[in-house]
Amino acid sequence: MKFLDDVDVDLVQCLASDEMVVRAARISTKSESVVEEAPGKTSGMINFLLKNRHGTPFEHNMFTFRIKAPIFVFREFHRHRIGWSYNEMSGRYTELPAEFYEPDVYRPLVQEGKPGAYVFVEGTAEQVHSTRAILETSYADSWDRYQQLLLQGVAKEVARAVLPVGIMSQMYATCNARSLMAFLSLRTKDETSTFPSYPMQEIEMVARKMEAFFKEKMPLTWASFQMNGRVSP
Amino acid sequence: MKFLDDVDVDLVQCLASDEMVVRAARISTKSESVVEEAPGKTSGMINFLLKNRHGTPFEHNMFTFRIKAPIFVFREFHRHRIGWSYNEMSGRYTELPAEFYEPDVYRPLVQEGKPGAYVFVEGTAEQVHSTRAILETSYADSWDRYQQLLLQGVAKEVARAVLPVGIMSQMYATCNARSLMAFLSLRTKDETSTFPSYPMQEIEMVARKMEAFFKEKMPLTWASFQMNGRVSP
Amino acid sequence: MKFLDDVDVDLVQCLASDEMVVRAARISTKSESVVEEAPGKTSGMINFLLKNRHGTPFEHNMFTFRIKAPIFVFREFHRHRIGWSYNEMSGRYTELPAEFYEPDVYRPLVQEGKPGAYVFVEGTAEQVHSTRAILETSYADSWDRYQQLLLQGVAKEVARAVLPVGIMSQMYATCNARSLMAFLSLRTKDETSTFPSYPMQEIEMVARKMEAFFKEKMPLTWASFQMNGRVSP
Amino acid sequence: MKFLDDVDVDLVQCLASDEMVVRAARISTKSESVVEEAPGKTSGMINFLLKNRHGTPFEHNMFTFRIKAPIFVFREFHRHRIGWSYNEMSGRYTELPAEFYEPDVYRPLVQEGKPGAYVFVEGTAEQVHSTRAILETSYADSWDRYQQLLLQGVAKEVARAVLPVGIMSQMYATCNARSLMAFLSLRTKDETSTFPSYPMQEIEMVARKMEAFFKEKMPLTWASFQMNGRVSP
Repeated sequence: MKFLDDVDVDLVQCLASDEMVVRAARISTKSESVVEEAPGKTSGMINFLLKNRHGTPFEHNMFTFRIKAPIFVFREFHRHRIGWSYNEMSGRYTELPAEFYEPDVYRPLVQEGKPGAYVFVEGTAEQVHSTRAILETSYADSWDRYQQLLLQGVAKEVARAVLPVGIMSQMYATCNARSLMAFLSLRTKDETSTFPSYPMQEIEMVARKMEAFFKEKMPLTWASFQMNGRVSP
Repeated sequence: MKFLDDVDVDLVQCLASDEMVVRAARISTKSESVVEEAPGKTSGMINFLLKNRHGTPFEHNMFTFRIKAPIFVFREFHRHRIGWSYNEMSGRYTELPAEFYEPDVYRPLVQEGKPGAYVFVEGTAEQVHSTRAILETSYADSWDRYQQLLLQGVAKEVARAVLPVGIMSQMYATCNARSLMAFLSLRTKDETSTFPSYPMQEIEMVARKMEAFFKEKMPLTWASFQMNGRVSP
Repeated sequence: MKFLDDVDVDLVQCLASDEMVVRAARISTKSESVVEEAPGKTSGMINFLLKNRHGTPFEHNMFTFRIKAPIFVFREFHRHRIGWSYNEMSGRYTELPAEFYEPDVYRPLVQEGKPGAYVFVEGTAEQVHSTRAILETSYADSWDRYQQLLLQGVAKEVARAVLPVGIMSQMYATCNARSLMAFLSLRTKDETSTFPSYPMQEIEMVARKMEAFFKEKMPLTWASFQMNGRVSP
Repeated sequence: MKFLDDVDVDLVQCLASDEMVVRAARISTKSESVVEEAPGKTSGMINFLLKNRHGTPFEHNMFTFRIKAPIFVFREFHRHRIGWSYNEMSGRYTELPAEFYEPDVYRPLVQEGKPGAYVFVEGTAEQVHSTRAILETSYADSWDRYQQLLLQGVAKEVARAVLPVGIMSQMYATCNARSLMAFLSLRTKDETSTFPSYPMQEIEMVARKMEAFFKEKMPLTWASFQMNGRVSP
């Protein structure tokens, strides 16, 4: 059994560029190519599009990620329906690997305030310690029962009912820059956001790793997203 | 703690009729109302539309269901993205109720064959008995640890990591007749289906209850769906 | 031949309420019904959801409109893909009615500035007059050629190639409050909008009529939309 | 003025492979890479997925086309909402080029039968001749009025109301293999189709050119689509 305190995000394949955003937008106004344009112009155009919520030019690109994260993160993730494609490891068809999520020592453990206005604060050393202990015991027991059921010949799809939502799963997730920005806008917390978000830490860990790839592949679009309050067009 | 061997489906609100399918379709060809038409004509038109994959006329209606089912069912359910709206009980914001899914004695427990060609067969009396015993023990232990973590002041969204995917959750799910037929086509098994499906039993239990409401509210559409191999248009 | 300077919007069917928004949201936090809640609480909850971009609770409702507008409006309209269902009169299957759009005398006719920063200003009396004259002549000639082609036995789908995008068409359009707010946010101009929009006047005429029905059916949601800068959650 | 009897389809960018379909599917059952697999296995797996309507593995790829076709084709095209992204030349922002669609001499001109059971047959030599003559005259007159309006300072978005739906437009359209197969299934006619389609000839001309690129980039997926009755999974 492995206890992991981090998520994994790999960029499996990608076809994305700031230039294609501009090309797609330019077809509305004139048909010439934009290849010869100066970079300043590209940046200005992208900024104009983002600010004015012209969203469709940001859809002509693709990012496929391979993500490893606990099931409770994927549960939230899959609620993003539009511009997202998923294929996930299935407990019906395969025995899940024995990897479980455990918060690292910096994960704020205590929730204060009421629904709609939660604040998370650090746990005491004792809380940190006992949380880990309880999680590990609970995970181990659930795993044992899962193995017991499988050994008795029970189908995987029935046996897995005992597995906790803290178990790690894996998926391919494909999106475009527009659907990715919508995700990032909701699933990251940033001082400069026009609309504040209060994401669960574990989904933000995934989102931050995805954002690093986005920034690398579409630097002007990312910069404009950041500059314009992280609002998806 | 409650152990439940069934799922719940209520129809919370509904605005759906066979007549509206025909009205929507008729706008393509002539603008008059169809109110005075004979029922035979309505049925023929619906049959024509379904058979010829004219899907859009089936979208002008709405069903909102309230569904109680285990998390592993909702995980599959939420992969239906288009024409579906969801709001689900959240383990981040509320303490989940202590209700867990346990297969009834008729649930085939044993999987035979290989991926892509599974067959499910009944378990032996002993398998049935021990499966229940193990599930109950495992659920009870997970619940205890969840309570322990909450008692120590750990945030709900962290504590719930130990909860099993067999715990019951609840959601509102809204769809239209077209997205519902796409769901039923994949999530029910029927001898007469043009394309055979091998749904997990627990999602089929949900699907069958939804289908009963569909049949009641749009009898001609349902009959045509059944007659045409249960293919969504 | 008729020349029309307005669009038509009827609400054909509707199942929508502010209460259902709150019920759908409440399932995340507690399962009790909200029937006994005071109206003030409903309004506060809706406001909280809209402001914090919790969009899904606004999807459990339905509006079906019947809209008559020129083809160039429907061309823009149909670019709204998500949460929208359409059935439109078809020039392939029916002879289109001889109704054409003509701006009324108040429609600003002259475009100043450059792409991305257009301003529309009123035309002179002469421009207004000659625009009407040219439109009417052109529409009449196109209609004559359409009739000529049909008389010679040419298929409707070929003959209609000569028909102008100013001809009136009709469609059913079904949406929910969330997709409707996204539409209104982009297709209406309002001083108080967080993000300014510059819609084409003719699509705004449609949008304003749809908004009146929305305001009537979901007054608290509409008020909150208006108060929060007309940003769709 | 140009009269064109064909449509244009270019593949602007593409990231698509049969291998990625299999990789995405394999994550459900086991996590190893499929790189070392024999081609026969890939083909068998793809065939299994298509036949059993496992659609999501076909979504992790992208095709961006640049398409030139008459507006009446784009009107039909844009009704494909899911898995499609569009940016089209806009008559609001640019003066449209003077290019118009005219059927070639082989285009069946005459429609026989009634709605739902149309058959198209060839026109007589005279019908072919006079159709061309009327289309050209009508297009030319509409274009003159458009130019007149522009010359008088009328805004492009108003002036274009006289332009016919037979005028050529251009767009970028991005899709994935799954949404592309859904399009091809409806917009092409093929003897071997499980569900017969009766597409308008001009949209089929576009579809056939798109299909040639699809076949080239994902040969095994295409072959399986063809072999399985051209039903999108």
